[in-house]
This record gives sequence, C-alpha cells and structure tokens, in this order.
Amino acid sequence: MRIPLLFSICLWMLSEAEVIQLTDMFGEIRTPNFPDSYPSDSEVTWNITVPEGFRLKLYFMHFDLEPSYLCEYDYAKVESEDQVIANFCGKESTDTEQAPGQQIITSPSNFLSLTFRSDFSNEERFTGFDAHYSAIDIDECTEKSDEDLVCDHHCHNYIGGFYCSCRFGYLLHTDNRTCKVECSDNLFTQRSGLISSPDYPGPYAKSSDCRYRIELEEGFVINLHFDDNFDVEDHPEVKCPYDYLKIKTGKKEFGPLCGEKSPGRIETGSNSVQILFHSDNSGENGGWRLSYSVTGMPCPNLHPPMNGKLEPPQSEYTFKDQVVISCNQGYRVLKDNVEMESLQIECRKDGTWSNQIPPCQKTEKDSRMS
Amino acid sequence: MRIPLLFSICLWMLSEAEVIQLTDMFGEIRTPNFPDSYPSDSEVTWNITVPEGFRLKLYFMHFDLEPSYLCEYDYAKVESEDQVIANFCGKESTDTEQAPGQQIITSPSNFLSLTFRSDFSNEERFTGFDAHYSAIDIDECTEKSDEDLVCDHHCHNYIGGFYCSCRFGYLLHTDNRTCKVECSDNLFTQRSGLISSPDYPGPYAKSSDCRYRIELEEGFVINLHFDDNFDVEDHPEVKCPYDYLKIKTGKKEFGPLCGEKSPGRIETGSNSVQILFHSDNSGENGGWRLSYSVTGMPCPNLHPPMNGKLEPPQSEYTFKDQVVISCNQGYRVLKDNVEMESLQIECRKDGTWSNQIPPCQKTEKDSRMS
Repeated sequence: MRIPLLFSICLWMLSEAEVIQLTDMFGEIRTPNFPDSYPSDSEVTWNITVPEGFRLKLYFMHFDLEPSYLCEYDYAKVESEDQVIANFCGKESTDTEQAPGQQIITSPSNFLSLTFRSDFSNEERFTGFDAHYSAIDIDECTEKSDEDLVCDHHCHNYIGGFYCSCRFGYLLHTDNRTCKVECSDNLFTQRSGLISSPDYPGPYAKSSDCRYRIELEEGFVINLHFDDNFDVEDHPEVKCPYDYLKIKTGKKEFGPLCGEKSPGRIETGSNSVQILFHSDNSGENGGWRLSYSVTGMPCPNLHPPMNGKLEPPQSEYTFKDQVVISCNQGYRVLKDNVEMESLQIECRKDGTWSNQIPPCQKTEKDSRMS
Repeated sequence: MRIPLLFSICLWMLSEAEVIQLTDMFGEIRTPNFPDSYPSDSEVTWNITVPEGFRLKLYFMHFDLEPSYLCEYDYAKVESEDQVIANFCGKESTDTEQAPGQQIITSPSNFLSLTFRSDFSNEERFTGFDAHYSAIDIDECTEKSDEDLVCDHHCHNYIGGFYCSCRFGYLLHTDNRTCKVECSDNLFTQRSGLISSPDYPGPYAKSSDCRYRIELEEGFVINLHFDDNFDVEDHPEVKCPYDYLKIKTGKKEFGPLCGEKSPGRIETGSNSVQILFHSDNSGENGGWRLSYSVTGMPCPNLHPPMNGKLEPPQSEYTFKDQVVISCNQGYRVLKDNVEMESLQIECRKDGTWSNQIPPCQKTEKDSRMS
C-alpha cells in the first residue's frame, strides 16, 4: 500500500515546474487547457517584467481552482520580488481562503510573478483561471516623496519616466534634478552696497557656487555687516559641511560661515574682498544679506604742534582725510625752513601722513613788535 | 520711402519657415535663443507625432511673446490636424489676447503642431517660451462610445491600446471584438423538447451561427411552437438583414424569421428539421425559444365498413395509430376470402394504411340460423 503513495509523491516531485518569462507590456495568462479543466500535478510560474518607470496590474476574469484549507493544495500565488502578495484558491472567498473576485493587484515594482499549482488528486474538474496583466505608468512627480530624489523646481511625468526643469533664470544642474544659478562673477566697485544670496529673502538656489568681489582702491578697507536675518544650512556636529560662506582677502580668510546666527560685522582690513557662497543639492534656507561700506586706512594719531592747532580735530584720521595745521597768533608754520601761514597734510593709502607735523615758530615780526 | 518697406516684406517672405518633426514620447520646445530673447523675423513649426493609441499634452513653463491685437504679430499657435486649438501671445491674458498660463492643451489625436512666429520689428526684448509635451495614454475602454467599436464583453486597456476578451464559455470572434458561442452542432432526437437561442432569455451571443437539428424516424412530422417572447434584430425596410432564424426541411424552408412578433406554430411536415440561427456583430436582443413536438404522418380518413365499426373512432389517424375493424353481430370481417373476427390495421409512415378496410360479410351460421 505504501509504494503507490511514495510513487505518487516522487512523480509529483519529478514533475517539472515550468517557468515562463513574460516581458510584454500586457497579456493574458491562463491555466493549462483553459477553458477546459486543468491537469493534476501541474506547476507553472509566469515571471512578468516590464521596464523601470512602470508597475504591473493583474486581475482575473475567471477563477475556479480546487478549494482547500489555506489553499494548500491547488493555488494561484502572486509574488513581488520579495513577498507573497496574494494566494488564491476556490471560487468564492471564505473565512480561511481567498478567491480574487474583482480585485486588481498592483505590484510595488516593475516585476510580478504568478504561480499556478495543482496537486495530484483533483477528483472534481476545475476550470482554472484567466488572468490579464498590463504595465501602468508610475507618476513619479506625484509619488516621489524622498526630498533627495524630487525635482527642485518643476517635475514632468511621461510614460515610463520623468524629468526635471527649472524656473526661468535657473539652470538645471548636471544632477538633472537641482536648479542652480549662474552667480560666479559679480563685481562691486562702489564704496557701499548690498550683496545677498540668490532670491533673498526666499530660499537660495541649490547646487550653486557664487562669487562676489568687492574691489576698491588701495587705502580703503572694506567692512561687511550681515543682516540679523541669516540662514545657511548647517550641521549640529560637523562645521558647515553642506552650504557655507567664505570671505577671503589676500591675507585673511573668514569662515566657513553657516547656521542661523548672523556673523554681524566683519572688518576685513582689506580693499579687496571675495565672498564665496556654496550651496549643495538639498535644503531650503533663507540665505543672507550684507551691506558693505569702506573706511580708509587709519593714519597715526596727530598731536597739534606747540602753539598751534589742527583743523578739523578728529580722534581718528583715515585715508584721504586732510588736516590743516596752523599756529597761534605770533607763530607761523615752519616747513623746510620756510615760514608759511598753514600746511595741509593728507592721510595716505599706506597709513602714513604726507608730511610730519611742522613746528610753530615765533614770527620775526612778532619778535620785532615785542 | 516705399522701397525699404517692400524690401522688408520681401525679406520676411524669404525667411525660411523651419519645420521640425518630433516623434519622441516627450520633450521640451523652446523659442530660438531661449532663455535669451528670440530673434525677429523667425518662424518655426514643431510637428509632434506619437503612435496611435496616444494623445498629446502640451503646456508652457515660461511664456513671454510680444503682445499684439489678436496676436497678429508674434504668436505661438497650437494646431491639431485640421483646426487651430490655441493662439497665444503676450505674457498675461487680456480681453483680446490669450497667454497660456497654467493651461494644459490636450490634442484630439496623436498629432499636434506648435508654430512660433516673430515679426520683423521687436523693439522690446521678449524671452519667448519654454513648452513641454508628452504622450498620454488613451483609455479606449472608458472613452469609446460607438457601439460598433466597443468590446462585446470585457475591455482591457493597456498603454497604447486595448483588447477585448469574452466571458467564460464564449469565444472571441476573429473581429477581435465580439464574443460568439460554439453552437453549430446540436442534435435532438426525442419526440419533444425545448430549443432556445444562447443565453435565453438574456441577449443572445453576437457573431454566431447556431445549428439545431431535430431528427426523428420517418413517419413523424415535427411541429414547432415559438414562445410569444420573441426578439430577433430586424430592420424596418429590409427583411432580416442582420440576425435571422431559418428553418429547413428537405423540401421546405421557413423564414428568414426576425422581429418581435413570434412566428407561433410552424408545422414543418417533416421528420427532419434544421434550425439555423445567425447573429451579426451588434445588437442586444432577447432571442427566442420554441418547444417542439411530433405528430405522425396522417393517414386517409376511415369509414367503417357497412355493418361494421372502427375502434377507436377518431376524426384523424396518424403514423403508428392502430385501428381495429369489427363487424356487427351476424357479420364477420372478410379478408382475402378468409372470415375473421376482426382486423387490426395500422397507419404507416408513408401515410397509408397497412390494409384496406375489409367488408363485413353475413356469416353462414347466421344465414343458416336465419
């Protein structure tokens, strides 16, 4: 009695599990012999693959498999790459078994497999199934939610894919996703001005490298004053790994600057400043704005000569400031052994005065009068 | 003064109207030099063609053309094969001119053309447009409304097309649209029965040719009796051009039958009847049902012999009816010069009696007794 059973099991194990690869964009899948009843001891797997950018839908127009507890005998099993999506048997759903009915199965990816299996003993005749599948387009523009994969400005869906484009005035970065601005060549030569990140106070452009140069004649020094409103993407542990400002003079470098605290006032001590601003491909930050002004190179403090005075008197003099030195009544300015009424000296670009403070000498006339 | 104007017009007429053929499933269309301002005196037409089963959508992400009354100078014109869908200019819509704004233009077919034209005098600088197009799938299953093109049973849309399938038990006709039944070989041999169109009283299958044969032994004649409920597609002027029933015997033909009036009872006069039922590829009609019964071939009426009687007396005798002839008291049946008590005769399949009615002859005994 045991031999026929073993024999049957062996036969079943030997029966080939047929695998059919399908790559069409749509099609029909039927059990063997459909619409006649399917054979016992049969296993067929249909692997459906469509191009990326699509998913698959599968549905049954007819379904009639042998019912069994938990569909352990005959079944139609739908799987994606790594999970069982459905396992059907019978004709109508029960508490323990499901039949597909009007259900439309949608695959998570561009792959779906359907396996039909019948055991070795179908006493009744079952007609099997008639399934249909087709590729459906994924609308990446509405479905993508990971910020790093989403279009920076505009998303355009098409059948099988999507692409990004940028608002007028922006350029698509070579990452085909973020929109950069062309801002590498900005020159400022006025003694004061306003400089800000692109689109300030709106979020600045991603994937951009901006360069702003302030160039003034030697003798001036440039001072920057950042608005309080400052927002450059930063990182809690690493210093400005994403977006940053750098301020360079010939000798000094300030930064990298980032975060939400304004750098306030920066005295560069130079007449030539480069402001570099780098943004990476993510983040929405408000950016920055600064006003710059210049002051001249300071000259050494002046003390009026004995019996003389300076006009105008100032606590500090800088490049291009002029000072007139004159003497009290009865005295005259003596420069290079020549007496004169007054002497004008100027603070020069190198921080030196054009002349030393001359002494005041008692006039001969005065000496005659005295 | 007239020469430069003429010259300009000639130049404009000579300027080449460039035509660009696009067959990609999606793409971007920009005015010449975009995002810089477009040149004067320019005309470019983009003809976009995608495969059948698709239509096109077109929309503008940037639009800035010279405004003019009714867009007669510079314009972007969208056309399908035989009509202007839109004509745009300016930057914002006004009472007389339209700018595209957020509008999405959908083509009626798989073709769309976009023409850009600038005239010879743009004093201001306009930046032109940046348009995007893509193919979109037509869902023929929900959009088709002409009954002659719609799937008879199930419609399956896929990207770029659709196909039809049939309910279980039906076959897809070679028209790939209608569902026929296999009903060409039905044989009835019982003396009574019911025959109906497929799915009666539901609408009968399209594109089908059914044949029902009733075969009985010679001598019977078959009578058909149609139910009052009769509905076969007809035509007000032409006789049954679409669907029809024909009833054929060896000698006679009834029909074609169609319409909504039941043919009622048909006496075929034959023991062998073919019922042919043809349906075309359209129409939803309830069909027909008939019951058939058989009667034998009638034999000539019988008159009892003088001094005799027939058992059973009937107004009509048919195939296989038997009659016993006996005589009144004092008389005996005389067949082939042999006297007998009674004679049984039978109505034969050819409608003749197996014997003539024999005479009743006075018995000798009776004559002796008298």
